[in-house]
Amino acid sequence: MLTALRQYCGPRLSTRQAVREQHGRDESPFDMPPPEAVVFAESVDDVVEVLGLAHQHRVPVIPYGTGTSLEGHILAVQGGVCLDVSRMNLIQQINAEDLTVTVQTGVTRNQLNAELRHQGLFFPIDPGADASLGGMAATRASGTNAVRYGTMRENVLGMTVVSAQGKVLRTGTRARKSSAGYDLTRLFVGSEGTLGVITDLCLRVYPLPEAVSAAVCFFGSVDAAVQATIQIIQMGVPIARCELLDVHAVRAVNQHDHLGLREAPMLLMEFHGSPAGVAEQAQAVQEIVRELGGADFDWATTPEARSKLWTARHHAYLSALQTRPGCRCVTTDICVPISRLAESINAAVAEVEAAGLPYFIVGHVGDGNFHLGYLIDPTVPAEREAAERLSHQMVRRALTMDGTCTGEHGIGLHKQTYLIEEAGEAAVDVMRQLKQALDPHNIMNPGKIFTQP
Amino acid sequence: MLTALRQYCGPRLSTRQAVREQHGRDESPFDMPPPEAVVFAESVDDVVEVLGLAHQHRVPVIPYGTGTSLEGHILAVQGGVCLDVSRMNLIQQINAEDLTVTVQTGVTRNQLNAELRHQGLFFPIDPGADASLGGMAATRASGTNAVRYGTMRENVLGMTVVSAQGKVLRTGTRARKSSAGYDLTRLFVGSEGTLGVITDLCLRVYPLPEAVSAAVCFFGSVDAAVQATIQIIQMGVPIARCELLDVHAVRAVNQHDHLGLREAPMLLMEFHGSPAGVAEQAQAVQEIVRELGGADFDWATTPEARSKLWTARHHAYLSALQTRPGCRCVTTDICVPISRLAESINAAVAEVEAAGLPYFIVGHVGDGNFHLGYLIDPTVPAEREAAERLSHQMVRRALTMDGTCTGEHGIGLHKQTYLIEEAGEAAVDVMRQLKQALDPHNIMNPGKIFTQP
Repeated sequence: MLTALRQYCGPRLSTRQAVREQHGRDESPFDMPPPEAVVFAESVDDVVEVLGLAHQHRVPVIPYGTGTSLEGHILAVQGGVCLDVSRMNLIQQINAEDLTVTVQTGVTRNQLNAELRHQGLFFPIDPGADASLGGMAATRASGTNAVRYGTMRENVLGMTVVSAQGKVLRTGTRARKSSAGYDLTRLFVGSEGTLGVITDLCLRVYPLPEAVSAAVCFFGSVDAAVQATIQIIQMGVPIARCELLDVHAVRAVNQHDHLGLREAPMLLMEFHGSPAGVAEQAQAVQEIVRELGGADFDWATTPEARSKLWTARHHAYLSALQTRPGCRCVTTDICVPISRLAESINAAVAEVEAAGLPYFIVGHVGDGNFHLGYLIDPTVPAEREAAERLSHQMVRRALTMDGTCTGEHGIGLHKQTYLIEEAGEAAVDVMRQLKQALDPHNIMNPGKIFTQP
Repeated sequence: MLTALRQYCGPRLSTRQAVREQHGRDESPFDMPPPEAVVFAESVDDVVEVLGLAHQHRVPVIPYGTGTSLEGHILAVQGGVCLDVSRMNLIQQINAEDLTVTVQTGVTRNQLNAELRHQGLFFPIDPGADASLGGMAATRASGTNAVRYGTMRENVLGMTVVSAQGKVLRTGTRARKSSAGYDLTRLFVGSEGTLGVITDLCLRVYPLPEAVSAAVCFFGSVDAAVQATIQIIQMGVPIARCELLDVHAVRAVNQHDHLGLREAPMLLMEFHGSPAGVAEQAQAVQEIVRELGGADFDWATTPEARSKLWTARHHAYLSALQTRPGCRCVTTDICVPISRLAESINAAVAEVEAAGLPYFIVGHVGDGNFHLGYLIDPTVPAEREAAERLSHQMVRRALTMDGTCTGEHGIGLHKQTYLIEEAGEAAVDVMRQLKQALDPHNIMNPGKIFTQP
């Protein structure tokens, strides 16, 4: 296989140790031997050729965008070749009138937004990292704007995909909706590279709001912050972002970004609309916050002040890592019906406090989704075990609440037992049947989401 | 099979001619021999039992909700048994805090909304008919509110499904978002009964808006009405409904509902929000309309006046049928990127005028979706042929515009060649592989969406 690949790829193939190692790990706390080689695809033809050879030689192929996944999605657990698509990074079409764009798979969200800004448009999905849009689709990513704009599930209109068998498929069109057959787009969104390689995407984009304002406020308890969120959502306030940072997360971003925020559970919110609409939303929210004892309601209406706050929010993960030098983070990602959110957070906090592990919480609370990060010393097995045990407890509780083990990070390697507990053996068997039908030799990112029998 | 079925079902099975015939046709202009029997399922156990027997005897099963599909979805093209689920009509859970409900598959949208109203909530998806929610999911239905609230694709959170092999699956949870494995929910949404039987659904619902107002206005041309719509969407006005009626549709509803509307291309719009927000949206829209020569901008802010207008809109199809006694309607359903909508409508109008067939147009223009209905005399084969030819031309043009052959009605029997033209053989083959994997004996509503080789 490698000989044939090298013949086709020439300098686009690398077997250098450093390149392989860089492509052999993501942001998860797993270690694994790297892939045997890295191929840098530059076109759909390259992808077709690589998958054709892989199919012929029965060699695993692992699609790779920016390597920022959190659940071991890109680890070469069964060896094989890493297919780096980051050079396929052309913005192919911006259709401002239709509010759609077509991009190659390796375009990152920041790259897209830098280009869209000139046309008064933006793409709202923002996982913390500057991930590739293909990778974001593959993990069904979301982020802070999902409460208003949805996730990758709602915002991918169509794709070009190279199937495991090397066929080029178009799924979807540029139409906003369609009832034309099975929803192949949604099947590939969230498939974590196990069914084929996404090579381009048609996405929905949005007009930049006429007015934007952000606000922070602080609460006596996480409970009060969540209650405020529930009331905001229930009143139908079209809030664009509604993020919780617990006291540990606030402390971490204070240290990292020198923000001087009050160290208490905090909501960080953003409102989009007309100037009058934003003012009205903000007033409604302010009343709710006041009733629940929220304090220090503070505005950030200038782009600079807003950007400072949201940058801090996006740094929360890195900032928290720096509070314990040498630590690694075991991140959870449960999402529950919002009425159960406070209960879910409180129980998780009680458990981690009892276990004595350092931690922090950030949450897309408008969606009922939050991340509790356990900051563990990777050289102390007992800490990893404790984090795993606590994480599993959180998931089990979320499932009894009709929630999910992962709101936006995906299953990867780490959450496979959780998926079975959540969906049940019968549903996971259906997933296995779909995989078997589309990738009979199990070459596409094998060993992820579920194991094949 | 019938003997075994009768033994299990007792009086829940009927082979009476009248019952079979009633279950053997939908709103499409197709005629077909009826199913051999009709079973009235009353529980998940009934569905499991019927599918088990069908699987054993290799007999087709056709799920049936209200029989209001438009593309021959429920016709017994390969014989078999109709599985009527309309008695499974319990609203099982309303979780107002979480904005979710759980309903059995046979609950209709009006039944659900009558119940939700007491809690200040509503479910927005409104195809013309009072369809069952399971059927609406199976055809990926939408309607007039989709421009703001999305379609069934966006509003089904999870389901219980009995697979072709008689296994009970849970897909999704009550969480608003999830990255847990393949998106089985979205695979069953739009699968037209070909992969299994939906037995219950968890849906998103919305707070009743504080203020609602509707408005009509009239334009010199369809073009001007569509231009107004494009500008409304592009400005980011969160309009809740934006419907076009052409002069023929306006004339038909005038006759049917005695409305006295000006007989010209008309936009019928609705705004949801706070009182100030609604006023602001309406003002922005009024300015756009005025610039494009729209006239007679007229408000309907009382619930009665609004209801009268929307009832007329929902009657448009029936009203148009009555303009030509004895006619049948061949309905089109293309959806294109909105920048191509006026061109798409104008070309279709020119063609139908040249052919001399009576027609009307209603459109969910905010989505780029419209229905041109050809009113044909079913006893004149040349008229049906002309309608088929014109419809095909519309679809081909929509595909060159990056659009879809069906925005919301589905493929059924009628649009199978269109699906191949739209998605390509490779993508339709993937659909066939999925069907083969989940329903190896092809018992679930066979012959719909695509033919199996």
